[in-house]
Amino acid sequence: MERLRIGIVGYGNLGKGVELAVSQNQDMELVAVFSRRSLGETSSGVPVVSIEERAQYQDAIDIMVLCGGSATDLVAQGPQFAALYHTVDSYDTHAKIPEYFAVMDSTAKAAGKVSTISVGWDPGLFSLNRVLAGSVLPRGTDYTFWGKGVSQGHSDALRRIPGVRDAKQYTIPKQELIDAVRSGQRPSVPANEAHIRDCYVVAEPGADLGQIEIMIKTMAHYFAGYETVVTFVSEQEFQAKHSGIPHGGFVFRAGETSPGVNHVFEFALKLDSNPEFTASVLAAYARATFRLAQNGVTGACTVFDIPIGWLSPKPVDALRRELL
Amino acid sequence: MERLRIGIVGYGNLGKGVELAVSQNQDMELVAVFSRRSLGETSSGVPVVSIEERAQYQDAIDIMVLCGGSATDLVAQGPQFAALYHTVDSYDTHAKIPEYFAVMDSTAKAAGKVSTISVGWDPGLFSLNRVLAGSVLPRGTDYTFWGKGVSQGHSDALRRIPGVRDAKQYTIPKQELIDAVRSGQRPSVPANEAHIRDCYVVAEPGADLGQIEIMIKTMAHYFAGYETVVTFVSEQEFQAKHSGIPHGGFVFRAGETSPGVNHVFEFALKLDSNPEFTASVLAAYARATFRLAQNGVTGACTVFDIPIGWLSPKPVDALRRELL
Repeated sequence: MERLRIGIVGYGNLGKGVELAVSQNQDMELVAVFSRRSLGETSSGVPVVSIEERAQYQDAIDIMVLCGGSATDLVAQGPQFAALYHTVDSYDTHAKIPEYFAVMDSTAKAAGKVSTISVGWDPGLFSLNRVLAGSVLPRGTDYTFWGKGVSQGHSDALRRIPGVRDAKQYTIPKQELIDAVRSGQRPSVPANEAHIRDCYVVAEPGADLGQIEIMIKTMAHYFAGYETVVTFVSEQEFQAKHSGIPHGGFVFRAGETSPGVNHVFEFALKLDSNPEFTASVLAAYARATFRLAQNGVTGACTVFDIPIGWLSPKPVDALRRELL
Repeated sequence: MERLRIGIVGYGNLGKGVELAVSQNQDMELVAVFSRRSLGETSSGVPVVSIEERAQYQDAIDIMVLCGGSATDLVAQGPQFAALYHTVDSYDTHAKIPEYFAVMDSTAKAAGKVSTISVGWDPGLFSLNRVLAGSVLPRGTDYTFWGKGVSQGHSDALRRIPGVRDAKQYTIPKQELIDAVRSGQRPSVPANEAHIRDCYVVAEPGADLGQIEIMIKTMAHYFAGYETVVTFVSEQEFQAKHSGIPHGGFVFRAGETSPGVNHVFEFALKLDSNPEFTASVLAAYARATFRLAQNGVTGACTVFDIPIGWLSPKPVDALRRELL
């Protein structure tokens, strides 16, 4: 079997997750990792190459998985790589997706390449399910709940408070709301009333814990208006219990097909590691993106444009026989 | 807006559901219903035409939604209509899907048409989620649970027992198993231990209830080996509480991306009416099938071959802006 030759751009948590994902897929091999620094070798023994040498691997790599952050990395690296390779990325600044799509689309089209953007679980699998649910239940109400999971932005906000040495914030959807939606009720709930912000804080020695708690609970845009729980823990407990990056959530649509005939559509993920799962989704979409390219497609795509069967390593007749 | 002109073949519960679904989708209109009998008009005022006149509507109808049963109707009507129209159907005899696909594929290709087969929720949305989950979590275990829902086949089996006037069987997945899988455990469970068979029986006056219960619980292939519950109810209670055809179920995949890093993928449906929901899925796939045809595709397709964005009445740039 000819294996899909993968390059990874960026070697943080997400890039390391893609390295793991490639090792789980026998039809893929990792050729090189590109980084701003040249690091020698990755944990699986693949060369780490300077990002400046990106043009030199066009004969060796079929598709690049872009693993940088959306805010600064992808806006620059996306078009740089789309001009040279098929790409897949997890661009997740929702409000700027149309703008990023336009740039990636024109760059990839001009180069005769395909770039699949905004792959992961939200945006990604959650988006797929929102469109699927809305298409099969035109009359209905959508709900998205996030968590239980770590919010990086809120954890950063906690760590900026004077007297806080380390901190982590979990977003937790309220179970009674999930139960209500799952049972077919359609409650009207603003996002700040649907989630709890659960904070674990390691304070500096001698810090005023009461003052820290007040600063957290009144912080505008982050915690004010939310049900916020603050728990102070020791450095040791923090390392032992709060070092993971779990996440997940729920997409629901409750709708009716005739008066009083109700249906509930639910999609849920419970993830021990947000970056490892996102990386696994990227790997599957790398496979599908290369198939699009082999079918003559050029330009930018999203999860909405790709048949689900193309994500699988199995041929479609096997899918029909075994999984339809 | 040019509306998609729909024909329905067969006017049982599923056909009536498609009529409702078309009325919920503003980009569709129902042109005619085809039936073995000529019935005048449907409840929404559309003509009911004899199936023998099927060739006369090729200028008036864009796509036919085939609503007959798999066992006898679709095997005959599928190819008859695929030779004349784009079609979508809910063929659900899992073991014979490859054979049916081959016939529909060659017929539709020869006619320059597209036929999407085996659309609904299982096969259909459940199949999609099995492929999606297996593609993003290559190392894992799949679970499908059905219910709570009415099994037509088991209800028919109950009604064949002497002394039974009417009966309905609900398949119910065991909640403790769903909870275990949802929490990330991977129990090994044969299907007969994963579901309860809950039977509501109206007995003939003077019938031997004990004997009926024994006949049910020992019936090979249907109830023997299952946890089976039998409740005798009056005719009135049966009409009041057991006249619906609810269904639903769960697709899970529990997998790991590295040792000890586990993820749970869940898709669930809770449906007040199995035929109305199936019909709504058929309507969305009718839209997508017509788009495939407009893009030059011919032959048979399944849910695996169709981009999710094509199911929606919204243009793809709106989907990217609003739902990605």
